[in-house]
Amino acid sequence: MTKTMIRDFSQTKAMFQMPADMIYLDGNSLGPLPRAAAARIADCVTREWGEMVITGWNRAGWMAQPTTYADRIGRLIGAEPGHIVLGDTLSVKVYQALAAALDLVPDRRVILTDSGNFPSDIYMAEGLIRSLDRGYELRVVAPEDVADHIDSDLAVLMLTQVDYRTGRMHDMAALTQKAHDAGAIAIWDLAHSAGALPVDVAGCGADFAVGCTYKYLNGGPGAPAFIYVAPRHIARCQPALSGWLGHAAPFAFEPGYRPGTGIERMRVGTPPVLQLAALDAALNIWDQVDLHDIRAASVALTDQFIAGIEASCPMLILASPRDPAARGSQVSFRFADGYAAMQACIAQGVVGDFRAPDIMRFGFTPLFIDAGDVARAVAIIAKVMNDRLWDRAEFQQKAAVT
Amino acid sequence: MTKTMIRDFSQTKAMFQMPADMIYLDGNSLGPLPRAAAARIADCVTREWGEMVITGWNRAGWMAQPTTYADRIGRLIGAEPGHIVLGDTLSVKVYQALAAALDLVPDRRVILTDSGNFPSDIYMAEGLIRSLDRGYELRVVAPEDVADHIDSDLAVLMLTQVDYRTGRMHDMAALTQKAHDAGAIAIWDLAHSAGALPVDVAGCGADFAVGCTYKYLNGGPGAPAFIYVAPRHIARCQPALSGWLGHAAPFAFEPGYRPGTGIERMRVGTPPVLQLAALDAALNIWDQVDLHDIRAASVALTDQFIAGIEASCPMLILASPRDPAARGSQVSFRFADGYAAMQACIAQGVVGDFRAPDIMRFGFTPLFIDAGDVARAVAIIAKVMNDRLWDRAEFQQKAAVT
Repeated sequence: MTKTMIRDFSQTKAMFQMPADMIYLDGNSLGPLPRAAAARIADCVTREWGEMVITGWNRAGWMAQPTTYADRIGRLIGAEPGHIVLGDTLSVKVYQALAAALDLVPDRRVILTDSGNFPSDIYMAEGLIRSLDRGYELRVVAPEDVADHIDSDLAVLMLTQVDYRTGRMHDMAALTQKAHDAGAIAIWDLAHSAGALPVDVAGCGADFAVGCTYKYLNGGPGAPAFIYVAPRHIARCQPALSGWLGHAAPFAFEPGYRPGTGIERMRVGTPPVLQLAALDAALNIWDQVDLHDIRAASVALTDQFIAGIEASCPMLILASPRDPAARGSQVSFRFADGYAAMQACIAQGVVGDFRAPDIMRFGFTPLFIDAGDVARAVAIIAKVMNDRLWDRAEFQQKAAVT
Repeated sequence: MTKTMIRDFSQTKAMFQMPADMIYLDGNSLGPLPRAAAARIADCVTREWGEMVITGWNRAGWMAQPTTYADRIGRLIGAEPGHIVLGDTLSVKVYQALAAALDLVPDRRVILTDSGNFPSDIYMAEGLIRSLDRGYELRVVAPEDVADHIDSDLAVLMLTQVDYRTGRMHDMAALTQKAHDAGAIAIWDLAHSAGALPVDVAGCGADFAVGCTYKYLNGGPGAPAFIYVAPRHIARCQPALSGWLGHAAPFAFEPGYRPGTGIERMRVGTPPVLQLAALDAALNIWDQVDLHDIRAASVALTDQFIAGIEASCPMLILASPRDPAARGSQVSFRFADGYAAMQACIAQGVVGDFRAPDIMRFGFTPLFIDAGDVARAVAIIAKVMNDRLWDRAEFQQKAAVT
């Protein structure tokens, strides 16, 4: 890192455009706009696309960005440089990782995940299992029971480190070790980890890791996903999605597929250049912060929030682990009428989100949320809950997307 | 269509930002910037993402754009409204189409394509065949021999309508009919057709069609792909890439996958919102033109180009069909030192591209290229070729991306 690291997050807070009169506790779903992104994207559009047109692939560096930008994310998750690449969506990256992982343990048929995994990860596994039609079994157990189900039948352990509903965090190092001891492969989805807390995929021995960049990383709506493959596996990974940009020589237009030598083989098609420009601006902020500082601030904010809500809103039942060491960077509460309650909070300027059936979810993102925001959010939520502002017809109707 | 249709393409030409001193004959590889895109993208960034943040999924309509924008492309390719959707890259859409097509003919094992298909289509088929491990065979024949290889063994005919190197165009209606007569399924890649010429996927009876939006459609670098599934098939398509946004109720977060009722099931993950904003601006132009007008202008431009080059550059051998009815909207010439020659043309301001081993390729896009451009391009190319400007060391070095 050549840049000076920022330790005072009031500096990073000023780098984001935050909507007026809004306390945004949903950066775990979609990060806000880094102010510098507007100019970076405009430059990509008018100068790169507009003036360079096709030559932008080389002259503006578009073709290389999926690997060069990915390495900046790699620093945040402990990936060895050159072993992570951006592209596609997280669901597609899950598919690639699982297909490659199953190839590595051809004599086993069990995939283990937990009921707290994001549904799309489970859906993609279902689809792959159906397509392969080779007797694979997807075992879905409760998060706390995962360790007990790792045995010598297991082909692949596929987990999201931080539960999207509760914020419960798996012990990535211990579960990976246990999977390896059983002869299995471990895939980690870092959707709610990357940019939320320090991750060390290499140190944990993770075999594959995937994640998205539009949540804590603030890459913007539709930002691409990433995939990490441990260096020891890459040469044996035959990509299921063997697209031309994963070919050893994409522009030779050879008649047959030859995978690229390294992580490049996990590329598929044309990179999303405009989304990458936005991500570049977001990563310029991440390049200047240390995840340990982020984690310390996050724990302080989540602890403050839990204490504040529990002191003022007895009807809200904590759904997240009380122990910060077992918790990601979000806090969830259960409330039977949680959908309406969250709509009422949003109407009052506190933006979190709702996850069925009864979870009110709040994300804490120290880059742009501070203790004053948390205190104000607690006061507003307390008013919504104690004055029953949610018990109005306008908040009771269910939207398609929340 | 509520808008007045534009028949005079000098009006559309003014809607594009063209680099100074450049005749851009590469819109078949990456379309230029529609001037209105800059403001549309900036609005998406600063107002939608910046002010709405997470609420943009509903309030700005992001979640619906993959289908609503797709229907505007559907008009250009003759798709029934509601049966086309945007997302991912073309390679991924090829994979989805082929996986679903193979499911429809479970007792057959042959996939037929031609050597003029874009390599990524072939690579994706290879990867799918390898994953399925069920004895599928990919037969690759010469473009002109395709019809003779359609027989009762055939499961899927998978072709790109317009050859990316030569511009040779298949008879989509006839080959589809022949495939159907043989009991096979037809998948058409419209990468070099959509926006280049009138296409009628419904009228031809195509079973699946896929394409990209960054070439003739001018959606920008990294613009998403599209997939069309004939209405008669969609209910039986079990998506191989069964992501959450293809689920019947994505935000119910159900534990198991249930495909959406229609084309929505071919969605996978989060849509690329910034890319879709760019595409929206590009489609605002397409909404106002008739493909039959485009085709007439395109044929005139390509005829003019062929005549001009053949009259002035005897060393260039026409690689495209001379009959415009058998040709897409590009013209290719063979030349042994074609890479260097194209570099020299580009240095002189005529931008086409090179495709191995010896193809100099020029795309003709009436929205922003006119007869005057073609006359100027011919004069420059003639100078490059006859003065042997390409025979300089600076043009002989091969770049990674051209």
